[in-house]
Amino acid sequence: MKDFIFHSPTKIIFGRGKNAEIGEELARDGVKKVLMIYGKGSIKRNGVYEEVTSSLNDNGISFVELGGIKPNPVLSMVYEGIDLARAEGCEAVLGVGGGSVIDSAKAIAAGIPYKGDVWDFYSGKGPSEALPIYAILTLSATGSEMNGNSVITRDDSMEKKGMHGGAITTPKVSIIDPSVQFSLPKEQTVYGAIDAITHVAEYYFNGSKELNFPDRLCESLIRTIIESTDVLLENPTDYDARAELAWSATMALNGMTAVGRGRGDWSSHQIEHALSAIYYIAHGAGLAIILPAWLEYTKDVNGDKIVQIGERVLGIKGNPEETIEELINVYAAWGAPVYLEDAGIPPSDAEKIAENGSIGYPLGSAKTLEKEDVVGVLKLASKSK
Amino acid sequence: MKDFIFHSPTKIIFGRGKNAEIGEELARDGVKKVLMIYGKGSIKRNGVYEEVTSSLNDNGISFVELGGIKPNPVLSMVYEGIDLARAEGCEAVLGVGGGSVIDSAKAIAAGIPYKGDVWDFYSGKGPSEALPIYAILTLSATGSEMNGNSVITRDDSMEKKGMHGGAITTPKVSIIDPSVQFSLPKEQTVYGAIDAITHVAEYYFNGSKELNFPDRLCESLIRTIIESTDVLLENPTDYDARAELAWSATMALNGMTAVGRGRGDWSSHQIEHALSAIYYIAHGAGLAIILPAWLEYTKDVNGDKIVQIGERVLGIKGNPEETIEELINVYAAWGAPVYLEDAGIPPSDAEKIAENGSIGYPLGSAKTLEKEDVVGVLKLASKSK
Repeated sequence: MKDFIFHSPTKIIFGRGKNAEIGEELARDGVKKVLMIYGKGSIKRNGVYEEVTSSLNDNGISFVELGGIKPNPVLSMVYEGIDLARAEGCEAVLGVGGGSVIDSAKAIAAGIPYKGDVWDFYSGKGPSEALPIYAILTLSATGSEMNGNSVITRDDSMEKKGMHGGAITTPKVSIIDPSVQFSLPKEQTVYGAIDAITHVAEYYFNGSKELNFPDRLCESLIRTIIESTDVLLENPTDYDARAELAWSATMALNGMTAVGRGRGDWSSHQIEHALSAIYYIAHGAGLAIILPAWLEYTKDVNGDKIVQIGERVLGIKGNPEETIEELINVYAAWGAPVYLEDAGIPPSDAEKIAENGSIGYPLGSAKTLEKEDVVGVLKLASKSK
Repeated sequence: MKDFIFHSPTKIIFGRGKNAEIGEELARDGVKKVLMIYGKGSIKRNGVYEEVTSSLNDNGISFVELGGIKPNPVLSMVYEGIDLARAEGCEAVLGVGGGSVIDSAKAIAAGIPYKGDVWDFYSGKGPSEALPIYAILTLSATGSEMNGNSVITRDDSMEKKGMHGGAITTPKVSIIDPSVQFSLPKEQTVYGAIDAITHVAEYYFNGSKELNFPDRLCESLIRTIIESTDVLLENPTDYDARAELAWSATMALNGMTAVGRGRGDWSSHQIEHALSAIYYIAHGAGLAIILPAWLEYTKDVNGDKIVQIGERVLGIKGNPEETIEELINVYAAWGAPVYLEDAGIPPSDAEKIAENGSIGYPLGSAKTLEKEDVVGVLKLASKSK
């Protein structure tokens, strides 16, 4: 087992109706004024906005709002949030939404006390302080509610980069009410599940040797995510399945899956970022196409682990190819694209995709990938493989 | 899935040689003077004392020492630590040892800023502040390195009570170097493993309904603890087995196993406390005797879960009795006592044990136990059951 540091200090409050506790949490921490950010308005339709603002009012917390955060959140909105929070004297940032909103909250919280340009933190420099961050999660997928990571796209150059602020930019409190996800469009549930599975896979298949508890933890998460998603596609208001999926997605990227393994591989994510940068495709959809192809491409180093998860989770005995095929079948049954063609991406674009600036070569830890390897992965992601 | 709060803010630094990082951690947090407490001196024989004090010196941290903390740590030592830390102006408490030392560190840290008697916190009142607590773990068993709990015995009345300080008394940083446990006597490894298994069992068998990820997490922990202990009895210096056991024991009581289940049952622990109070028996040894008997006694409510863990972990198909028998076999193979008689406790003392003040009736959550039920459990813990 490799050495590790595990530090995941977020207080998670989990359950039906718990969003109404946010005001009490802020008051307990002595926060009097908060910048509340959210997305395109779904929280006004599903009751979350009302629940949260009532709780703030009831607890005497004043708040300033910034709505309109979009998927693939952009730096210009982060600047807007920083300016607003400074002008209004906000003492904390509250993100109400999915990963994009929470990632933006982290960026704003780190930017407020910083004299320089917050983009520095997305260019390799770590933040040394941040305002306290609070989150109300409305879409289980990225795991941002329990880690210090944030991905922001710079509007003027379309560069998409990450900040890894560790405990400094980890939410102090995150509230997860699985029932607010009852009304999600089917594909958002599916893409969230695929994102979470891929987070686990980036660590499980990072080239580390077999582990006992850490491997079984990852396998338990992937099994639960698959089984819960299967249930939710039949019955989107099944509370237990929503709760199992939500908690598993949080656990998938709170540092627990990294224990004993070293750094994640992250090739699938980087290749997917190139897809998303060029084509109009959801992150989870791109991952559904890339992860199986990457597993196929790396089966010389990941073969034993693919067999292990096949046997323990998917009921496949001793065969990596069949295990990968079964994963593709699961994703296809959920309605996700599983080949480039399913998403309208021409396989002949492979070179162009591999050359996209979203990918920083060399890539990966299980197997080091160069441009020609990514072309190879993309070939395996084609129907004509 | 039941509602829950999960908050486990300890920074865990895990790996060989990591104890030498304690000085740097304290310096980063601005601590200049620390009260360092430890046990009966094994840390002076295994090199940990030298490693830790060198690190403190190298980082300019001055320290005051209090050695001699004993198993079942006592209130008088806690008072001594509080007085010493106050007199010397210590800003933090560092526990170097196993659960008894870390539990004492928490008591001292909570007592220093408190105007009243620290025993108040063991009599139902929660602490509202504490000095920061740091831990260097030398024996994996109680999980105290990653939770806010502390159990202290009041010397004058022999009352053994718990403080549950949550995040306030949770160590800020805990360092776990599994290799310092290479030299443990065999029975300490075994009793630590049994303590950890029982911590998982107190939640897994608490009467909650079947869960997906949370159940698999518990099963993965128990499997890993059993397999790692088996390896260590053959080869006590197997690093990976020490590491798997250490991390599993930490995970067994950091709040993760409680997710979605509500409160633990804790009957086995309370009955064991009565055994330890009357007879000279190690906590893990007492638990080896009590947990299987308690499972037998509660199989009308815990039957499905016993079958589930039997099938998933112990390779027993559909039979609670055989599963319990297999657990007894595992413990017996490790050299632990599995019946009262093995520990020299006369089964005819059952009434006396059940009347011991360590047990607060009614007991348990899976099944509510009164005095006659505890007598029933103890009958099943006898060879002549």
